[in-house]
Amino acid sequence: MKLNCDMGESFGQWQMGCDEAIMPHIDMANIACGFHASDPVTMDKTVKLAKLHHVTIGAHPGYPDLQGFGRRAMHMSPNEIVSMVQYQVGALGAICQANQVKLSYVKPHGALYHAMMQDGKVMTALMQGISALNMDLALMIQANREAERWAQLAKSVNLPLWFEAFADRRYQDTGELMPRSQAGAQLELDEMLSQAQSLFRQQQVISQGGQPLGLKADTLCVHGDNPAAVAAIAKLAHMRDSLEQN
Amino acid sequence: MKLNCDMGESFGQWQMGCDEAIMPHIDMANIACGFHASDPVTMDKTVKLAKLHHVTIGAHPGYPDLQGFGRRAMHMSPNEIVSMVQYQVGALGAICQANQVKLSYVKPHGALYHAMMQDGKVMTALMQGISALNMDLALMIQANREAERWAQLAKSVNLPLWFEAFADRRYQDTGELMPRSQAGAQLELDEMLSQAQSLFRQQQVISQGGQPLGLKADTLCVHGDNPAAVAAIAKLAHMRDSLEQN
Amino acid sequence: MKLNCDMGESFGQWQMGCDEAIMPHIDMANIACGFHASDPVTMDKTVKLAKLHHVTIGAHPGYPDLQGFGRRAMHMSPNEIVSMVQYQVGALGAICQANQVKLSYVKPHGALYHAMMQDGKVMTALMQGISALNMDLALMIQANREAERWAQLAKSVNLPLWFEAFADRRYQDTGELMPRSQAGAQLELDEMLSQAQSLFRQQQVISQGGQPLGLKADTLCVHGDNPAAVAAIAKLAHMRDSLEQN
Amino acid sequence: MKLNCDMGESFGQWQMGCDEAIMPHIDMANIACGFHASDPVTMDKTVKLAKLHHVTIGAHPGYPDLQGFGRRAMHMSPNEIVSMVQYQVGALGAICQANQVKLSYVKPHGALYHAMMQDGKVMTALMQGISALNMDLALMIQANREAERWAQLAKSVNLPLWFEAFADRRYQDTGELMPRSQAGAQLELDEMLSQAQSLFRQQQVISQGGQPLGLKADTLCVHGDNPAAVAAIAKLAHMRDSLEQN
Repeated sequence: MKLNCDMGESFGQWQMGCDEAIMPHIDMANIACGFHASDPVTMDKTVKLAKLHHVTIGAHPGYPDLQGFGRRAMHMSPNEIVSMVQYQVGALGAICQANQVKLSYVKPHGALYHAMMQDGKVMTALMQGISALNMDLALMIQANREAERWAQLAKSVNLPLWFEAFADRRYQDTGELMPRSQAGAQLELDEMLSQAQSLFRQQQVISQGGQPLGLKADTLCVHGDNPAAVAAIAKLAHMRDSLEQN
Repeated sequence: MKLNCDMGESFGQWQMGCDEAIMPHIDMANIACGFHASDPVTMDKTVKLAKLHHVTIGAHPGYPDLQGFGRRAMHMSPNEIVSMVQYQVGALGAICQANQVKLSYVKPHGALYHAMMQDGKVMTALMQGISALNMDLALMIQANREAERWAQLAKSVNLPLWFEAFADRRYQDTGELMPRSQAGAQLELDEMLSQAQSLFRQQQVISQGGQPLGLKADTLCVHGDNPAAVAAIAKLAHMRDSLEQN
Repeated sequence: MKLNCDMGESFGQWQMGCDEAIMPHIDMANIACGFHASDPVTMDKTVKLAKLHHVTIGAHPGYPDLQGFGRRAMHMSPNEIVSMVQYQVGALGAICQANQVKLSYVKPHGALYHAMMQDGKVMTALMQGISALNMDLALMIQANREAERWAQLAKSVNLPLWFEAFADRRYQDTGELMPRSQAGAQLELDEMLSQAQSLFRQQQVISQGGQPLGLKADTLCVHGDNPAAVAAIAKLAHMRDSLEQN
Repeated sequence: MKLNCDMGESFGQWQMGCDEAIMPHIDMANIACGFHASDPVTMDKTVKLAKLHHVTIGAHPGYPDLQGFGRRAMHMSPNEIVSMVQYQVGALGAICQANQVKLSYVKPHGALYHAMMQDGKVMTALMQGISALNMDLALMIQANREAERWAQLAKSVNLPLWFEAFADRRYQDTGELMPRSQAGAQLELDEMLSQAQSLFRQQQVISQGGQPLGLKADTLCVHGDNPAAVAAIAKLAHMRDSLEQN
């Protein structure tokens, strides 16, 4: 199972994240595209860093809201969302081409990701809009109980779909993530490693209420905002490698 | 000689220009890319309009300055400029691909165009940066006395160069445009048609001081901000067609 | 009854509205503050125009969303909203002071106005936040069935409240405005004059379903985006003056 | 002599600076106003922090350029600059009023500060524009050889002027600061303490070329981007206090 992580979230003079420390440990970099974070220079730098470590590159488009880091819900029509995502994907795609490296997938960010998972019209529009780009891209979405439905829809527009699970976020009994605003939403290191192991081995997580939830995931989303989180990602990568060797 | 015109300069709820009236009369549309004007929805709409009228599409990237419409000089390093232009070109390129139409060239906007024509480091960086995209793009620059030098440089990075002259702007004796801020910088309709005819037939303009200036141009830049200007463009296109038939 | 109208909605090079034609006919100008529309230069120009016509000046703060013109709902906490509104009110207040004219009231714009009318926490926070400025400001809100409740709340924080009704928008039977997206939401000229007359004389409107709705309003909101609308405002002002003289 | 420091330079989710650690050691906080850094919530938080430590509050307006942190020169007319500064000063002023604390002065930021010091038209316009606010504000500018000229001009518009020197930047023989881009522009801790002591005791600095430059300064600008810089500021404040006691 691949590890994916949000990368390139600095903006102008403002630094965010520990990209150089994390990049060696991950397989897929979700690179911000300038609407909720990043700027052209940061994108170029992040693409170069991903290339150096042979990390697969994905576009991480978000709402046009730097101040809110793309985490504030904004009302936009599916059509507006599609054009906005095509714009950001193309922008990062060009910077990839200038660096002679491939852009492989799209993973919407923050409130846009949430809108996509909540609203079938947004999901459908995004699938069509990304497929229409003819850029040989996959779409990364959350593994949940509707996975089969989304898989069929994606197939109908000829779009590869990659499902992700979350290593460091607690799942509710419904299969949804507990909102960040609630206590306990973020897992501690031990819990995180345990949840990841459960995903690697049994393709399931244990929900908040103690229920096992089956989750077929292609990739595991990790976060690395501080040195402790970076260390946790390194441990996770190591555990994954050990399991795969056996 | 082709007519090129800045298009797609609306932004959100704000309308600018007479795109629907002008598009039928021009050959090349310089489409704004969201930094100094436009937004993803406007770009999509403008690309569709250009496609409808079989107009060649160019990216019109500018400085990140909506408030100043990209007309304010901003100090940015050549590297910053390259990443910023690649970003904008890629964004429009993706919207073109989604509409199954080709993006053919790049023409920097406003103060960025000026910086490119004034500063050899910016010109060189842009040539390399656009060539590096491998998107089969030409660069449109101003026809002036240094044309031969720029042509050689472009050839060395394998970048087609298209030279443009201005139909409706007065030329100084140096071959530079008279700044917009000076009286008489904009030509009246009659003068404009006369200058265009001189460019079509003799590849020259008469400067402010009455000197003939040779200008080998591939394309003529026109502006159409109001109904009178649109009518002038239509006349210009008609005159050009008549001359070419003879 | 006073007429209020949104003013100063141009942004940089983009013009919007017919401010010079409308200003002579209205009593109160809701001036945009740079977040959803306008910029410092436009604000200064609009304040000068209002001063010239002895029009009462109000701040018209909105969400930080130029692209969406402040009409897109954005999730912000009441605290964030208060700081954002204080910022915009202060900005316009300074420009008023530089022009030696008073800033008299605050009327939130677009989706922020809607959030205030829908969410008691936002209304309460705004009342406290505007009162805390100690700038001798009133708050303008929509006249509806909860008017009495809001009046008491405003009194408790020592904030004058001005109620507004809408001349050119159709009311639903609930007393809410019909959403702009629905057909018939905007009244035609005759209907608009008739609704205004009904508000002037009987302090009521006839709802979509034919019900009379009592609306005690201090001011009537009008819109003037085109010459016809401007003419309608002039007619409205004239009708109001005639009624008041009798 | 007072210590002033740029504060409140975070933006949305991006943190910058060590405000909580520095605030106890300084006398004046130059608070960013949302154009080159900061946002309304950050401004409110920073004003509260300054109030807690009885630090005098100044507005630190900049160019509208978050991506470039206000450090990129932008071409704006003096009139545009005045409106833009009034806007930002008013915005911070309102947040101060909501916190029942006084806004005392204005110090332009980055490239705007540089434009003011280089271009007499900008300086003159700013003096008039800040005086016109009638908010009882001083203007903080750089102490240099033209101090007397600026003092007279400020007096003519009834504006108090505060001169500042720089503790941690090297001076050229001309009395100008060495540009940040040059090696040696930033002083090491020992040099910084030595330069500050020289300013405290003899009102002079030793220039790059070894010349003593007389500088009558009311306040000393310090920077605190990292823990070492914060420790240096604490040392500086302590040295200043010791000197003043003797």
